[in-house]
Amino acid sequence: MRKLDTRQLPEVCAELRTLIIDACAENPGHIGASLGVVELTVALHYVFDTPHDKLIWDVGHQAYAHKILTERRDAFHTNRKYNGISGFPRRSESIYDPFGGGHSSISVSAALGMATAAALQGVKQQTVAVIGDGALTGGLAFEGLNNAGAMQSNLLVVLNDNNISIDENVGALHQYLMKLTLSAHYNKAKDKIWNWLGKNVIRHTVQRFMAAVKRTAFQQSNLFEAMGFRYFGPVDGHDIPRLTSALRSLQHIDGAKLLHVVTTKGKGYKPAEENQTDWHAPGLFNKNTGQRIKVNGAPMRYQDVFGETIIELAEQNEKIVGITPAMPTGCSLNLMMEKMPHRTFDVGIAEAHAVTFSAGLAAQGLLPFCNIYSSFMQRAFDSVVHDVALQNLQVVLCLDRSGLVGEDGATHHGAYDLAYFRCIPNMVVSSPMNEVELRNLMYTAQLPNGNVFAIRYPRGAGAGLAWKHAPFEKITIGTSRKLRNGENTAVLSIGNIGNAVVNALDRLASEGVAVAHYDMRFAKPIDEKALHDVGRTYTRVVTVENGTVIGGLGSAVAEFFTANHYPLPVIRLGIPDKYIEQGTVAQLHAECGIDVDGIYRTIKSTV
Amino acid sequence: MRKLDTRQLPEVCAELRTLIIDACAENPGHIGASLGVVELTVALHYVFDTPHDKLIWDVGHQAYAHKILTERRDAFHTNRKYNGISGFPRRSESIYDPFGGGHSSISVSAALGMATAAALQGVKQQTVAVIGDGALTGGLAFEGLNNAGAMQSNLLVVLNDNNISIDENVGALHQYLMKLTLSAHYNKAKDKIWNWLGKNVIRHTVQRFMAAVKRTAFQQSNLFEAMGFRYFGPVDGHDIPRLTSALRSLQHIDGAKLLHVVTTKGKGYKPAEENQTDWHAPGLFNKNTGQRIKVNGAPMRYQDVFGETIIELAEQNEKIVGITPAMPTGCSLNLMMEKMPHRTFDVGIAEAHAVTFSAGLAAQGLLPFCNIYSSFMQRAFDSVVHDVALQNLQVVLCLDRSGLVGEDGATHHGAYDLAYFRCIPNMVVSSPMNEVELRNLMYTAQLPNGNVFAIRYPRGAGAGLAWKHAPFEKITIGTSRKLRNGENTAVLSIGNIGNAVVNALDRLASEGVAVAHYDMRFAKPIDEKALHDVGRTYTRVVTVENGTVIGGLGSAVAEFFTANHYPLPVIRLGIPDKYIEQGTVAQLHAECGIDVDGIYRTIKSTV
Repeated sequence: MRKLDTRQLPEVCAELRTLIIDACAENPGHIGASLGVVELTVALHYVFDTPHDKLIWDVGHQAYAHKILTERRDAFHTNRKYNGISGFPRRSESIYDPFGGGHSSISVSAALGMATAAALQGVKQQTVAVIGDGALTGGLAFEGLNNAGAMQSNLLVVLNDNNISIDENVGALHQYLMKLTLSAHYNKAKDKIWNWLGKNVIRHTVQRFMAAVKRTAFQQSNLFEAMGFRYFGPVDGHDIPRLTSALRSLQHIDGAKLLHVVTTKGKGYKPAEENQTDWHAPGLFNKNTGQRIKVNGAPMRYQDVFGETIIELAEQNEKIVGITPAMPTGCSLNLMMEKMPHRTFDVGIAEAHAVTFSAGLAAQGLLPFCNIYSSFMQRAFDSVVHDVALQNLQVVLCLDRSGLVGEDGATHHGAYDLAYFRCIPNMVVSSPMNEVELRNLMYTAQLPNGNVFAIRYPRGAGAGLAWKHAPFEKITIGTSRKLRNGENTAVLSIGNIGNAVVNALDRLASEGVAVAHYDMRFAKPIDEKALHDVGRTYTRVVTVENGTVIGGLGSAVAEFFTANHYPLPVIRLGIPDKYIEQGTVAQLHAECGIDVDGIYRTIKSTV
Repeated sequence: MRKLDTRQLPEVCAELRTLIIDACAENPGHIGASLGVVELTVALHYVFDTPHDKLIWDVGHQAYAHKILTERRDAFHTNRKYNGISGFPRRSESIYDPFGGGHSSISVSAALGMATAAALQGVKQQTVAVIGDGALTGGLAFEGLNNAGAMQSNLLVVLNDNNISIDENVGALHQYLMKLTLSAHYNKAKDKIWNWLGKNVIRHTVQRFMAAVKRTAFQQSNLFEAMGFRYFGPVDGHDIPRLTSALRSLQHIDGAKLLHVVTTKGKGYKPAEENQTDWHAPGLFNKNTGQRIKVNGAPMRYQDVFGETIIELAEQNEKIVGITPAMPTGCSLNLMMEKMPHRTFDVGIAEAHAVTFSAGLAAQGLLPFCNIYSSFMQRAFDSVVHDVALQNLQVVLCLDRSGLVGEDGATHHGAYDLAYFRCIPNMVVSSPMNEVELRNLMYTAQLPNGNVFAIRYPRGAGAGLAWKHAPFEKITIGTSRKLRNGENTAVLSIGNIGNAVVNALDRLASEGVAVAHYDMRFAKPIDEKALHDVGRTYTRVVTVENGTVIGGLGSAVAEFFTANHYPLPVIRLGIPDKYIEQGTVAQLHAECGIDVDGIYRTIKSTV
């Protein structure tokens, strides 16, 4: 491509766009973000000597054009599929992916590391981080910028300003970037005034004055320059000649520099441009009509249960407020946001802040439900330990997308929460087996109970129970539900995966094998009464959870039996000790042996 | 105090200063930071209606004057002592502490939560966060500012700019604050130019021009104003009349506002002013001479072993670089910094960045040793999962201050690392029992081994072995050391706490009871061969670790025995499932039953 004339590049872009639209229509993906950076991607690869020069995509779901351009065109139809290519950059996939990703706000720190190492090694290279304006609100991005500005490594940060995350952007920075973009107009106005002043002696005086102003205020006139970066732009991110010329001139400027590029999410595909939130990852669609293809008859999702239930609870309990870090649509808090805008807070991509902000709300007497995807809660671990649990503030932590999430793959699985929450004092760690249980856990969590209350539930469809307006029932914290009696073997499960256990045990029952089943509901406090029962009654135990086999429910059960002198063997089913890649949820459950078949086979082998 | 005349306040300050110096001379504490904010503390309590108005101290170790002024004068001699008052603000201690702390950068988020809740509740209150310039480099502070600037809650952030963290501040923000402070001089210069221009028609023209400039550039002329804050200052933080008058006028300004206060760490006590890093927390000293009282004959600390060993390794292996987030003196990386400045990086208070930056260095082929206190590593959990382990980059994570840290108390104990690291794939989780083992683990960690390698060790003295220049020995990953044979009972320990086990077993041996002892060294991978041995040979097991009893070594052992059908009871000794307060390390070990006596008693009760 680098051999082409600049004038031929729009053709390359058009082709890439068609490829992306065609592929995503049939194989769902992050079309909006990727369409927005087609020109930017082409310009970057055209100007820079990748893979020698290093190109790091923040978040990474916008890297489809990049993948197609870098040896993955033929594999692109396997995007996000089991054994296919990842929907995000991966070091293991291509030398053009020097640093993988999936979570936001990491690129500046990673690029600074690579640029610093290159300098130490005496390697001449350009290191480029492409970061969105949404990702910029994450604290890690700021830490990276602050460090980079001081170190003056040879680093280019391209700010891909598309004015949206998944939902609309929030935060002061967002408003600031708007101002900065508008200041291009200001610059023109300044020129006019300047000319109007005319060429006379006064102009010289004013010039001297302006020089003084510039030396001080102007040096600090830009947030990024305040951080030690040289700021360039804004540049139209769909204008190839301007992009390539801007990147070319930046090649010869040493130190930390930032190019502000303004793009349109969904660019070049009208439906995606016009409704950017829905078209962030729209699922299947008819590429000609732009009609999204709805899957009929799908059961309601856990997130819908959360979204409707929090409104019901908030109507009864005026202390309840809802918090989300940039995921109102993804976790369905948008429903409450519409009904109770003053009691709902989208704090932007800022998970640690979301939790510490919730702790502040609780310290003043409110009752926050803070909803964060499980894999993003990893960013708020210290806030949970230090700001919430240590002060034993009543905050309800709702972890959507816990367990294996499917097509988003390794970066997004909510695998660790049972393990990393269970070691924290003052925590209740729960997971509902179905929609009604979720409602009752949420109801219980907001009663006065003097605990930090975590509720985890998976991405996607619930168990299919009728739950709308089901009456609330208080659950005694730390109690399980015995679902079925049996002989010899007892299965202890937690969460929605318990429904797979039910099916597996039905099959065994039809073969005449009776196996007991407990829905534990709580990984902490664990139901010790039930475990004593199990210890006395059964001769072996299988635990099933949609989380790591290390540290979660299975470990809690093993700790209990060994501490209480029950010599029961415990087989722990869950996510094994390795990173699980992408695929459908069903495929990944099968890989981990926590689908109906896998559970059936494991139990069968023990009886 | 609010009844006093402003002119009497310097007297109050002088008295507070004497109290703090006298107390800290005999009962070590964070004297430097606290002396720096005496006037600020007095001014805040004088102007604001605490405890109705809420005052949140970031980090919180500077709150000694605050504690003395708010009902804890008589208890102040128990500062940081067992069963005494905490060295940090604590909600449980006083209504004047609306939000506790110990870790940095949390105050803006917490204060924003409280201010937002107050507004929802219709409560009129001032919410004030006092944050240092060091703490401001933490990403969480930025997330809080960004959200606060957009929400326009009634929030006052006091920036306590003392130009130092524990070590000297780094980062672009630091340089920026210097500029901002200097710009007071600029403002005077501007006035001069203005007067010099004279009163004529041109002045009007310039005025119009300047208005245009101001509307755009000047609105963005300040980092904090770019974040949506109204910026005031800088004000001399030791000038009571100016402080009180600035705070008074801010009382009547709604929205998000920031007052920039310039203070001197150690103010009013010459030795502390002159050597701010050493006097951050100087230990015992003679208050008259300013002589610090060294404890003679204390064994070298683990941090010294780390500091000297990394230099030895770096001399042999040119890929090795050292990274610390603002703790070069605390972790002794300052030794390498002096010898190899280009291969050592202090990235400021920015733990997540430190880890992701290390991942970047590793992705480019270097071998980073990233040293972070265990309790601060909690802030980098996602960076470890997502940026390091998922990509299986060879990064060595050294966790100083793991386990119970003593006087810093609940916020600072490194209790959770074994649990939160053990669930992550691709991780080696190790802990040395003595100095030589630490050296050998560090040596092993930098050999090509295709793993993320964590090494945890406690605060303070090592086991007392001669380690200087001891020859390096490669340790096979996942192997334990059998230290002693026994009958019936086997003790499995990890880390330095194993030395207490040795003493306890010596005592039992002298009573004729032989108990086996394994130094496990690795919590992951666990030494399965040794565990099979133990399972076959002994009838009961006691695990001992300086970490939570949930999720750590004990859990790994319980998982193994229950999975492999060994019906052994396992007693897990470690940090119980509650927050442990402050005290000497010995007192806290005794409280948790992991001192020699406690271990002795537990084992005795089992045999």
